[in-house]
Amino acid sequence: MKVAIIGGDKRMLFAAKAFSESGTEVMIAGFENLKSLCDILVSDYETALKWADYVVLPIRPVTEGCIAAPNAKTKLTVTDFSRLIGEKPVFCGFNETINSTVKGSVYCYSTREEFAVQNAVLTAEGAIEMILRFYENSLNGANVLILGYGRIGKVLARYLSAFGAEVTVAARKPRDRAWIKAFGMNTCDYSLKELSEYQIIINTVPAMVLDHKQIDRLCDDVFIIDLASAPGGVDFQRAKERDLTCIHALALPGKIAPAAAGRIIKDTIFNIIKEENGGKDNFGLRDDRLLLHL
Amino acid sequence: MKVAIIGGDKRMLFAAKAFSESGTEVMIAGFENLKSLCDILVSDYETALKWADYVVLPIRPVTEGCIAAPNAKTKLTVTDFSRLIGEKPVFCGFNETINSTVKGSVYCYSTREEFAVQNAVLTAEGAIEMILRFYENSLNGANVLILGYGRIGKVLARYLSAFGAEVTVAARKPRDRAWIKAFGMNTCDYSLKELSEYQIIINTVPAMVLDHKQIDRLCDDVFIIDLASAPGGVDFQRAKERDLTCIHALALPGKIAPAAAGRIIKDTIFNIIKEENGGKDNFGLRDDRLLLHL
Amino acid sequence: MKVAIIGGDKRMLFAAKAFSESGTEVMIAGFENLKSLCDILVSDYETALKWADYVVLPIRPVTEGCIAAPNAKTKLTVTDFSRLIGEKPVFCGFNETINSTVKGSVYCYSTREEFAVQNAVLTAEGAIEMILRFYENSLNGANVLILGYGRIGKVLARYLSAFGAEVTVAARKPRDRAWIKAFGMNTCDYSLKELSEYQIIINTVPAMVLDHKQIDRLCDDVFIIDLASAPGGVDFQRAKERDLTCIHALALPGKIAPAAAGRIIKDTIFNIIKEENGGKDNFGLRDDRLLLHL
Amino acid sequence: MKVAIIGGDKRMLFAAKAFSESGTEVMIAGFENLKSLCDILVSDYETALKWADYVVLPIRPVTEGCIAAPNAKTKLTVTDFSRLIGEKPVFCGFNETINSTVKGSVYCYSTREEFAVQNAVLTAEGAIEMILRFYENSLNGANVLILGYGRIGKVLARYLSAFGAEVTVAARKPRDRAWIKAFGMNTCDYSLKELSEYQIIINTVPAMVLDHKQIDRLCDDVFIIDLASAPGGVDFQRAKERDLTCIHALALPGKIAPAAAGRIIKDTIFNIIKEENGGKDNFGLRDDRLLLHL
Repeated sequence: MKVAIIGGDKRMLFAAKAFSESGTEVMIAGFENLKSLCDILVSDYETALKWADYVVLPIRPVTEGCIAAPNAKTKLTVTDFSRLIGEKPVFCGFNETINSTVKGSVYCYSTREEFAVQNAVLTAEGAIEMILRFYENSLNGANVLILGYGRIGKVLARYLSAFGAEVTVAARKPRDRAWIKAFGMNTCDYSLKELSEYQIIINTVPAMVLDHKQIDRLCDDVFIIDLASAPGGVDFQRAKERDLTCIHALALPGKIAPAAAGRIIKDTIFNIIKEENGGKDNFGLRDDRLLLHL
Repeated sequence: MKVAIIGGDKRMLFAAKAFSESGTEVMIAGFENLKSLCDILVSDYETALKWADYVVLPIRPVTEGCIAAPNAKTKLTVTDFSRLIGEKPVFCGFNETINSTVKGSVYCYSTREEFAVQNAVLTAEGAIEMILRFYENSLNGANVLILGYGRIGKVLARYLSAFGAEVTVAARKPRDRAWIKAFGMNTCDYSLKELSEYQIIINTVPAMVLDHKQIDRLCDDVFIIDLASAPGGVDFQRAKERDLTCIHALALPGKIAPAAAGRIIKDTIFNIIKEENGGKDNFGLRDDRLLLHL
Repeated sequence: MKVAIIGGDKRMLFAAKAFSESGTEVMIAGFENLKSLCDILVSDYETALKWADYVVLPIRPVTEGCIAAPNAKTKLTVTDFSRLIGEKPVFCGFNETINSTVKGSVYCYSTREEFAVQNAVLTAEGAIEMILRFYENSLNGANVLILGYGRIGKVLARYLSAFGAEVTVAARKPRDRAWIKAFGMNTCDYSLKELSEYQIIINTVPAMVLDHKQIDRLCDDVFIIDLASAPGGVDFQRAKERDLTCIHALALPGKIAPAAAGRIIKDTIFNIIKEENGGKDNFGLRDDRLLLHL
Repeated sequence: MKVAIIGGDKRMLFAAKAFSESGTEVMIAGFENLKSLCDILVSDYETALKWADYVVLPIRPVTEGCIAAPNAKTKLTVTDFSRLIGEKPVFCGFNETINSTVKGSVYCYSTREEFAVQNAVLTAEGAIEMILRFYENSLNGANVLILGYGRIGKVLARYLSAFGAEVTVAARKPRDRAWIKAFGMNTCDYSLKELSEYQIIINTVPAMVLDHKQIDRLCDDVFIIDLASAPGGVDFQRAKERDLTCIHALALPGKIAPAAAGRIIKDTIFNIIKEENGGKDNFGLRDDRLLLHL
């Protein structure tokens, strides 16, 4: 089986390495300064796309009408990309343009639940790294509030508890609060009555949770980290006026652990292929016809 | 607010106590040997049902056409019950007969997610108690397999890990396996390749997982506990033939922690009422009209 | 290498099994109703002691001048025992009579730190089993006080925390309190200011900690378990007068996990032999002369 | 009570703040660019030392015959320091020169066990931060080896386990290995048979553990962090030759959490005073005569 990995950043190089280590032939394009990478073939867009059986694109695959390739000088438009691959299957993060332009099957790995869970793990690790690095006090013994009990909240709550932090998770649903208690953490609702008691606050909710009014209730020494994608859930303007420490941390998985982020892409694509083959993992068998008739 | 609790076992007495401690007036019926219970009024069916604003029944509310009341000599048919309460709201575990017979609103607390989570906690505590009591070796250092990553599996995996057991959870879905790894446990699929390696196996799946063939692969010293409701997920007959230790443990919450089981019923009913009132918890205000117009 | 195991209860049978599974020849005496036990030879005192290279006695090896053998009708006095073994090395729990009577080397396994740690694990498991079984509420969410941060306190604090109990450990030394906080638990000193707040109290201190005065400060629903060896650290008389639930739990390792308790005896004896041989584990080599010249 | 804090870095400013917040009057000297710090008096050496009842110096109090004051232009020799304070009590990290020069009582806080434990917590947090930051893969799922089960090893093992890393601790003593297993981690001896399996190795032992020969057994992707004070326990030269990632991380507490590091100094000094007063904490009573007659 031949896989072409087109564009992307360091993560995609690690994804290439992960594919290669799993016994897949890999060619990469869109990394012009790269001469070689272990056993992986380095080439140009056209060669790679013609050579490959499958094509893998980054999580955010399109930038201004072209395949996202921050490390390449040459650009490849989505239209050209589509023409070059013909009906070959494409794996990429969710994208409307790719979906509507490509003729063959498009498999989205970024919306898969196991992809999201593993990325939540990396995001949690990244958030903890930032807290440890920038918070001047100890995590051990700190009073920590996590806003939201989605994937990231779940992982963070668990990892932070182990440091001997006193963790409270704000959650709206009674069932989430039941889970939080089952796992030995404190829980509260979004009235956030004890807001002034927390030394560290981590937001995971993509909505304005810490607005002007709430920011004014925080203690002076508070350390805020917002993990929600832009525009985030914190009134940063007001936080700045109050001179509070406040970090909006984005795209942590690729920063904290590019190797893991790359491996997760590979793993998820393998899961997709396995399911498409009715639970049978033909990948190792190098059956070139795999998926082509899907 | 006046609540009548009708029938049930020890759990319902603790539920009565929990209501009473929350400032609710409580009358119980269906406990004939009971003379008094703290501030709680003890009475007969008719008096209680006429007096109450709300009626609470057990999780399994009906036995052979009557309200389940193992501690009562007198029986109350569902028909009589329905006639006596008129249009008063009823809270009970899921039951078709009650649903179709009662004229007023019927609220099912046992299908609520937060009820199920809290009961999973009690089931996990009960399962651990049984393992500790009957397993002759140490939980610390044991190789444990949990079949299924539903609510009970989630809680058990966490609690058992803390004993220094080496926990593996069998799960079918890639996303469940991602969660299991995120939380530091081992995971496997249902081919159960290492089956002979486990000293303790806990089944939570309501399907024949450990069939004749699998039972034959187990080591002689294995300790099996099946938490799935009857008929369970283990070939008990074959396990017996092989002289394996095998326990089918049912209805653990009421046995291991009747006080908590009772409190959970009360908490869940409070949550239902709160939601019916649009998120406002009128319960403490003793507004007798609450819910009556629902 | 030939090992004779003399007297004791179920634990010693498991110790015999553990020795046998490690490739040691084993003969047991002092279990008169026992006909056979796997590959282990069952015999009488004299035969076993003459046959053996090493002799293993129970943790509490002497009862009223005889080798402790609750499952034997025939008694063996320490004097006869000493005469029969000559200068063969003996392994046993600490005992003054054995030490002063036996001519050869006497190795005490029960005072070894690794023996004590592993027994603390079993004691903790046993204590948790008793709490789960007899405490009518849930461990999850319970306010638990552990008196003492010795071996048992350390293990208990860790295991109980995982259940989502709110654990506080009373400790006298600032360094112990530093450790307790490092591991994310609460700590207090022995003024026990919040004594009325705890639902579960576990004593591990062999001194009167919960005296008459302290007992009177406890809440009515408290569940007390005393793990300190007799006379314990609780004013049981006063606890009874107040009708509090109070258990004095002794000798838990042998009750909760006789198989593990037996294996620990074997493991510790192996460690002793290894050290006596200068770090070299000759045990597997079946060098009969091993230790004889010590 | 009046406390003078002389020299040191950011940590000592946080110590000053911690003393001040505990109700102690504080004057600092040796921070020449500092104009003011909350309620704390900023002054020169002589004024501060004359004004104070007690004097607090940094953990490493002496540099080239002078009080360590990296943020001061003016130097204060130990001789001058000693003359200026007369018989006032001094609190500092262990130092031979201070001990032999000062006339009054010298209390060493850095050798106190609770100080060391709390610093181990900060060191562990710092080590985890460095691993998260520089290790390109995920901590979750990593195979981690910790060399040594002293204070730092104990804390690290616990915190790292929570990330879902597979933690093995190398320890020499059977009792340490018993503790490691009791807490659910893997353990090995220093033959380090599985050395090539680890992705992350953390050394805490102040001796050459990873020598030339061991370095050659490591896998190419290994990430090594050495926490042992100089010269450390790793053959850095050989690690460099093999192009392995290897960090010698020193003095982490002051870097990762200066605020906590400062508070710990204050807490430990309070504990010393409490003990010197026979367990009575007179500190809050502002009894100026406290300790002076010791």
